[in-house]
Amino acid sequence: MKVIIVGGVAGGATAAARLRRLDEQAEIIVLERTGYVSYANCGLPYYIGGTIQDREALTLQTPESFRARFNIDVRVKHEVLSIQPEAHTVTVRRLEDGSEYTESYDKLLLSPGAKAIRPPLPGIDLDGIFTLRTVEDTFRIRSFLEEKKPRSAVVVGGGFIGLEMAENLIHAGVRTTLIQLDDQVLLPLDKDMAGEVHSYLRGQGLDLRLSTAVTGFRRQDGKLETLIGDQPPVAADLVILAIGVAPESDLARRAGLTLGQKGSIAVDDHMRTSQPDIYAVGDAVELAHIVTGQKALVALAGPANRQGRIAADHICGLDQSYSGAQGSSILKLFGMTAAATGLNERSAKAAGVAYDKVVTYSASHAAYYPGAQNMTVKTLFDPATGRILGAQIVGFDGVDKRIDVMATAVRAGLTAQQLTHLDLAYAPPYSSAKDPVNMAGYVIENLRAGLVEQHHWDQVAGLPDDGSVILLDVRTPDEVAQQGLMRPDVIHIPLDSLRQRLGELDPSKKIYVNCVSGLRSYLACRILSQRGFRCSNLSGGWRFWSYAARDRVHDAAPTHPCGIPIGEDRHGA
Amino acid sequence: MKVIIVGGVAGGATAAARLRRLDEQAEIIVLERTGYVSYANCGLPYYIGGTIQDREALTLQTPESFRARFNIDVRVKHEVLSIQPEAHTVTVRRLEDGSEYTESYDKLLLSPGAKAIRPPLPGIDLDGIFTLRTVEDTFRIRSFLEEKKPRSAVVVGGGFIGLEMAENLIHAGVRTTLIQLDDQVLLPLDKDMAGEVHSYLRGQGLDLRLSTAVTGFRRQDGKLETLIGDQPPVAADLVILAIGVAPESDLARRAGLTLGQKGSIAVDDHMRTSQPDIYAVGDAVELAHIVTGQKALVALAGPANRQGRIAADHICGLDQSYSGAQGSSILKLFGMTAAATGLNERSAKAAGVAYDKVVTYSASHAAYYPGAQNMTVKTLFDPATGRILGAQIVGFDGVDKRIDVMATAVRAGLTAQQLTHLDLAYAPPYSSAKDPVNMAGYVIENLRAGLVEQHHWDQVAGLPDDGSVILLDVRTPDEVAQQGLMRPDVIHIPLDSLRQRLGELDPSKKIYVNCVSGLRSYLACRILSQRGFRCSNLSGGWRFWSYAARDRVHDAAPTHPCGIPIGEDRHGA
Repeated sequence: MKVIIVGGVAGGATAAARLRRLDEQAEIIVLERTGYVSYANCGLPYYIGGTIQDREALTLQTPESFRARFNIDVRVKHEVLSIQPEAHTVTVRRLEDGSEYTESYDKLLLSPGAKAIRPPLPGIDLDGIFTLRTVEDTFRIRSFLEEKKPRSAVVVGGGFIGLEMAENLIHAGVRTTLIQLDDQVLLPLDKDMAGEVHSYLRGQGLDLRLSTAVTGFRRQDGKLETLIGDQPPVAADLVILAIGVAPESDLARRAGLTLGQKGSIAVDDHMRTSQPDIYAVGDAVELAHIVTGQKALVALAGPANRQGRIAADHICGLDQSYSGAQGSSILKLFGMTAAATGLNERSAKAAGVAYDKVVTYSASHAAYYPGAQNMTVKTLFDPATGRILGAQIVGFDGVDKRIDVMATAVRAGLTAQQLTHLDLAYAPPYSSAKDPVNMAGYVIENLRAGLVEQHHWDQVAGLPDDGSVILLDVRTPDEVAQQGLMRPDVIHIPLDSLRQRLGELDPSKKIYVNCVSGLRSYLACRILSQRGFRCSNLSGGWRFWSYAARDRVHDAAPTHPCGIPIGEDRHGA
Repeated sequence: MKVIIVGGVAGGATAAARLRRLDEQAEIIVLERTGYVSYANCGLPYYIGGTIQDREALTLQTPESFRARFNIDVRVKHEVLSIQPEAHTVTVRRLEDGSEYTESYDKLLLSPGAKAIRPPLPGIDLDGIFTLRTVEDTFRIRSFLEEKKPRSAVVVGGGFIGLEMAENLIHAGVRTTLIQLDDQVLLPLDKDMAGEVHSYLRGQGLDLRLSTAVTGFRRQDGKLETLIGDQPPVAADLVILAIGVAPESDLARRAGLTLGQKGSIAVDDHMRTSQPDIYAVGDAVELAHIVTGQKALVALAGPANRQGRIAADHICGLDQSYSGAQGSSILKLFGMTAAATGLNERSAKAAGVAYDKVVTYSASHAAYYPGAQNMTVKTLFDPATGRILGAQIVGFDGVDKRIDVMATAVRAGLTAQQLTHLDLAYAPPYSSAKDPVNMAGYVIENLRAGLVEQHHWDQVAGLPDDGSVILLDVRTPDEVAQQGLMRPDVIHIPLDSLRQRLGELDPSKKIYVNCVSGLRSYLACRILSQRGFRCSNLSGGWRFWSYAARDRVHDAAPTHPCGIPIGEDRHGA
């Protein structure tokens, strides 16, 4: 058997190695357009910023090492120009000398990846404007930093690459402006979850411009200027374009393979294209989302690796299928971590999936043990069954753990009740006896059991101010003094005085209760509703509202979760 | 409704708070024998060692704060002497003045916990010998440290408390000997997994004596001596007894409640004892293990809290059931983390559960990103179905995350194949594109698919040395020079030369292959078996063997997992 693999990174490299392990006799050829294979593509921004100092660490796998270990014929700087599916051949160009040749295959695996988008804006090809996708791009940007010592940069785009580049540029001492077309960064998060990220990034010195369209570039008085419509241009020594990626499907399209959405390559469960002897994996293919069952594009390394392995298995006659992606993703932003899995509100609405949501705050570990920090957890669930549909978490410690437990729960189809039963490993340095994931389950179960009704941050402004409803704040006087009230008409009664001061509340009016996090206000709601008041709890409390509804400057990560007295969370939900 | 709760920590405190949230009108009385409620019991060793500096942090919940927030009548220093189930009363003693009274109840909830075992050894009551269970115990030990400034200590017992105390004593500058009856510490781990822990602890300065029985104590020339049979006694200024705990079921027994194993209290799924109006939760009760279905004792905070909530729910008419425990546990040991969930080999054998196992090494995150450290993962699975039965992990970074994902997988009944499909959140600072949990799944699937046969560390010594089999080591020459061969008769052929040197191997003999971790030797096995050799892979490789089979001194945690070249793990399984 002779297998040709187009693209030697992530899915392609994984497939090649797995093929060899399964078939010692197969002839395996990897054709890679760049000069590198199996490089650490997710590490590239960190090399530019200097967190990764060893250039070799990015590119340790060489064609030679791959050959030595796996007996694979790796040809870098070889570009596949066309595929002849009927003839089972590809036409290849040696980029070093421009010569071309034809290579036959029994099975062909396409792992072309995606290309960085470069919109046709005026001035897009000026010197000093870079995209980042390959090792070559990386060395080019790094050389520019070393030689030109830029003092300022513009990053266009607030996705993973844009934000990682912004962090790394600031880390390297470069004053950085990030320009984002959307009204938020990081689209795996809903806008309300991104609010805290925006505040935090600004606190780290990033000049963040949201809802801002780049209209072009020009060089003015020697300065590279990024034009943003009728606003003043932003001058900088360096521009990174990180607008997004598009599937590299040109080769597939010209070969007549069936395409999916946005020019992606359509594949079946075994990663086969419309031509049964041609497989495709990675950023270029269209996948089924495991929650919605609908097709989606997921440009992430984990799925690419899994797909490469599954394609190799199927080529070798093992019956493996790809079970779909759920878009689990995570990003380090200076000291902050933002992560998501499964559906968010945007993707649930787009897919027509019914959902409800809760926002919870939890300490990353026992609050009495040093280093605990709070995290914000937003969990989407199916209101009919309680099944967990997705989660988003923003925090400073232990976020990666909770998103992976949530990802496993989503994958396994667990319900909120099952989340409450999860027996997670607890010791004070690592968690609390009720883990943040358990807590999310409890809060959902309280809601589903009808123990409490909730409203959300975006409803606060619209609550009547004509005295027909009551807004009740149960924080402590100190908290209110420090943080202020959400509206001037809010009545303030600290939780621990509420039982004594019920007479101050008109039982004919519905009461909208808040505290800092939504936890004490839940206790208040339980007191009120059992005493005949109609009431609703503000999900996520003052804290979530303050980030989501206005542009609050981020507070330093508090040791105690959002000012909640220690132990309260142990008896909260 | 009037509810009496006996015991105001963990399960008792959780039940009290949940009861109030569900029933604003109920009369709730908590009777606690010590002077503290809802204290941070898992934090006590860290206060003794000074990691937790604030005494208030341990005991922030007071009877007064509990009353203010939850309107609960908390009576500390009140001991329940007896229960009269027919009359629905308890007899209570005020420990401050010795007076007694009777209190009636509609529902009674027992959360008595467990008591530290004090065996009837000679000298057990000498000054300077302590147990640790309550806040009072903690302050007593801390005062002793501050006043007597002990320079040496003996800890008896190598479970959670014993090890945490040993760490904290060393942290406080006290030379510490830990004496353990078993041949290993930390029984949630199998002995082979404990091997690395032993090495590491010794490297941290702990004088660890395994398989050693304490036979008594005496004071000799002013020194407190711990006697260990015919070995020389160990002199120390301080002894901590951490032999284990026993259910505090005396009250339940005398009330005629049905007991379970080891004197525990028997309960149903709703945490009801044999008397329907009496519930019991926490360390004192017997639980169903979710994997085996058999009854077990689990003295951990997480289950206690969940049970307290479920008992409260059931008392208030909500239909909640406890779904069983799986013994997820975790321990910080200086910089190391050891964790377990579900079944280990010992518990699987005891329960008669068929299992197979794999040992894998994985980096905690992308090896090219700073700070990656390797972890050892042992995973038990059902050989018939591939269902994950349990996992144990020892390492330095990211262990808590992987054990919680494994715990979720065990709870959800996931198979090894489903582990491979888990879409976990990857970015270089947090994980690898193939997470350690995915890797465990892949290795199990390779085994179950018949792609490789494996043998274990304890079989190496017994392999014939008469030339009838071949032991083949495929590490690099440098590794062999540094680490040595496992046996003098091992043949050494580095993996990357294997294809060229197959002629040196006798195809009539079975080949037992090892490398450092079991990963390159798997690749070697794939090459060999496809070329007609019979072979077997040493699970966990030289590294696991070196800790499990002999008392190797722990190496400093390497940046690259156990010397595996970067990237190898990306193409390994």
